[in-house]
Amino acid sequence: MPESRIVTLTTDFGLCDPFVGIMHGVVLKISPETTIVDICHEVSSHNVLEGLWTIAQAYRFFPRHTVHVVVVDPGVGSARRPIIVETDDYVFAAPDNGVLSLVEAWEPKFKVRHITAERYFLQPVSQTFHGRDIFAPIAGWLSRGVAVTEFGPEISDYVRLPLPEVEHLGENILHGVVLKVDKFGNLITNVGQPDAPLLFVASPPKFRLLIAGQTIRRLCHSYAEGDEGLFAIVGSSGYLEISGRQSSAAEKLAAGVGTPIEIVVEA
Amino acid sequence: MPESRIVTLTTDFGLCDPFVGIMHGVVLKISPETTIVDICHEVSSHNVLEGLWTIAQAYRFFPRHTVHVVVVDPGVGSARRPIIVETDDYVFAAPDNGVLSLVEAWEPKFKVRHITAERYFLQPVSQTFHGRDIFAPIAGWLSRGVAVTEFGPEISDYVRLPLPEVEHLGENILHGVVLKVDKFGNLITNVGQPDAPLLFVASPPKFRLLIAGQTIRRLCHSYAEGDEGLFAIVGSSGYLEISGRQSSAAEKLAAGVGTPIEIVVEA
Amino acid sequence: MPESRIVTLTTDFGLCDPFVGIMHGVVLKISPETTIVDICHEVSSHNVLEGLWTIAQAYRFFPRHTVHVVVVDPGVGSARRPIIVETDDYVFAAPDNGVLSLVEAWEPKFKVRHITAERYFLQPVSQTFHGRDIFAPIAGWLSRGVAVTEFGPEISDYVRLPLPEVEHLGENILHGVVLKVDKFGNLITNVGQPDAPLLFVASPPKFRLLIAGQTIRRLCHSYAEGDEGLFAIVGSSGYLEISGRQSSAAEKLAAGVGTPIEIVVEA
Repeated sequence: MPESRIVTLTTDFGLCDPFVGIMHGVVLKISPETTIVDICHEVSSHNVLEGLWTIAQAYRFFPRHTVHVVVVDPGVGSARRPIIVETDDYVFAAPDNGVLSLVEAWEPKFKVRHITAERYFLQPVSQTFHGRDIFAPIAGWLSRGVAVTEFGPEISDYVRLPLPEVEHLGENILHGVVLKVDKFGNLITNVGQPDAPLLFVASPPKFRLLIAGQTIRRLCHSYAEGDEGLFAIVGSSGYLEISGRQSSAAEKLAAGVGTPIEIVVEA
Repeated sequence: MPESRIVTLTTDFGLCDPFVGIMHGVVLKISPETTIVDICHEVSSHNVLEGLWTIAQAYRFFPRHTVHVVVVDPGVGSARRPIIVETDDYVFAAPDNGVLSLVEAWEPKFKVRHITAERYFLQPVSQTFHGRDIFAPIAGWLSRGVAVTEFGPEISDYVRLPLPEVEHLGENILHGVVLKVDKFGNLITNVGQPDAPLLFVASPPKFRLLIAGQTIRRLCHSYAEGDEGLFAIVGSSGYLEISGRQSSAAEKLAAGVGTPIEIVVEA
Repeated sequence: MPESRIVTLTTDFGLCDPFVGIMHGVVLKISPETTIVDICHEVSSHNVLEGLWTIAQAYRFFPRHTVHVVVVDPGVGSARRPIIVETDDYVFAAPDNGVLSLVEAWEPKFKVRHITAERYFLQPVSQTFHGRDIFAPIAGWLSRGVAVTEFGPEISDYVRLPLPEVEHLGENILHGVVLKVDKFGNLITNVGQPDAPLLFVASPPKFRLLIAGQTIRRLCHSYAEGDEGLFAIVGSSGYLEISGRQSSAAEKLAAGVGTPIEIVVEA
């Protein structure tokens, strides 16, 4: 029985309420030996796309068999289903609203089950806090070794969330968008190596990156390499970021999630 | 000796200082195998009533024998006593300022001790951080299995904090108040099922709820069921809340903790 | 192999991004039994001095052999070295930027190594997130019992950060500075007992403390002892603080980190 895994939590619950602490309690009541890790609870309220980004950045850094719980759930209490997803190395529990679509894009195996086994829920199930009443207990039981097959049938009509795609306008022009602003004000875009391989090398060709009325022509390899102005950099996420040295690019550009960018490679 | 329990922490210390981390260290130095859970550290500074609400919402979701530490303590360094409280399933350590009064209201057993055994304190005891010097070490020793009787004598003259009561003005009119605003801007009131049983059913009678100059006539069973306007809902706390769908009721109404409400049942 | 210690994390990464959660994952992937404690992640961005203050306040409260990781690292990706420091009771991992200089001031033993053993890093090492790629894995391996000698050679030319010193102007006048503002608005100065022993006793002589155009003449022994005005108090950090009872001295004085103070002992 006591197979004990790690459970991670990613939510938009914030830290000003007891919501997150309560979820810890529910998991530990079922599975006292589980190690619980808070990945992030400051996802913007109801922002499924930001939740998708957050879990996608983090999940691969955990040990095999970690149970990742993601609760960004504007549809709580509606007909949206709770799901369990198996990939080669991990198990996820989340509402069926596409919050795992980036994990799906990256994983060869992505097997989805509709959680129907209400005997594992906290009773009575509230209509407003499924993190406590459904997802935390499911994580606790998964962590104790209950097989995923116990929780419900496999489904294929789960929700897929379309990701903001990079548009290619001719060979050397592409349009992207800011996906996320981090604590330091770095603007993380959706431009990855497959989109602009020329910029993901040690000595890139000349280029210009247009954002918020400004033009950036420099690619740095570290924040420290930058000086007063703004520059592009390949971030730890694997995507192109726009950054300033010890300053917030987001503030300097008055840019944020959704700000479009254009990159023109001049080679 | 190594009986290891869970210790939870609820404080108004915030997360910008090392206060909370230091409390973890003190507990672990005494009892390295203890699992420590942060319930909430963003209780408003010195707000005993909010601390009372927070621990009351959370404590029952933890395993039996969990030690709950609550430090919202405007009287730190004064003559106010540190106490240990035993209920049927849990042990609490807190300043004697009424922060556990809602737990008392809900628990059949509520046995209070004045912590006088200074040999368990961190020496020298500061006058400003009893979370570190008194409550964390007490939690560590409790977690290691030291009996509650070791810490001091039972007392009966502990502080009781009066809770904001619902007032009944005739059979179908009641006055309540907003107790708490959560991260999503939901306004949690002090109106529970015993106060207004007619509203805690699947099909409630007609009613009007007045708050901040506006009238709400709709009770939803989930956030998703709501549309643009505001509505009442039975929250996960068991109390009536005022909410908006994916929007902050607190902002829309410019309401907050202490805002009065009136409910008139029209049946 | 599985010698399991506690690992603490102190960073300026904030809690709005998955950075901290990812570091937990990396440590646990290497050393699943390690207990990880978050000391503080809200150090102001790039503020090495605040990081220095934070870890110095906290490290001694942890069990022996705890591994303290401190990542406030404006030079990430530059030539600055990653280091391991051994003191009598603890091991630290940090960038070589002086963030441990206050620990050095307090510890008889302070042995520094340049981390050169890249085989322990997460590959490929990013240029922007050494918390994930270098410091978390180092902490994981240290926690598993790998000897510090395995990670690199001892060095003596590590960076030392000068601390703001108290200036003595004659026998009874001294100039200090605010080092830190805590969550309650208390202003923590750099004036310790050796600087002004007369103020660190039960009944201090008459004095005046000038800050932000105001004069404070009262030393309280607890916050509760204070009344409406501002007062000085020996804080839990061991330094002189300026505080108000249940109010923010920082707000009342419009003072903050770097605000100078003058103390004149009138005895």
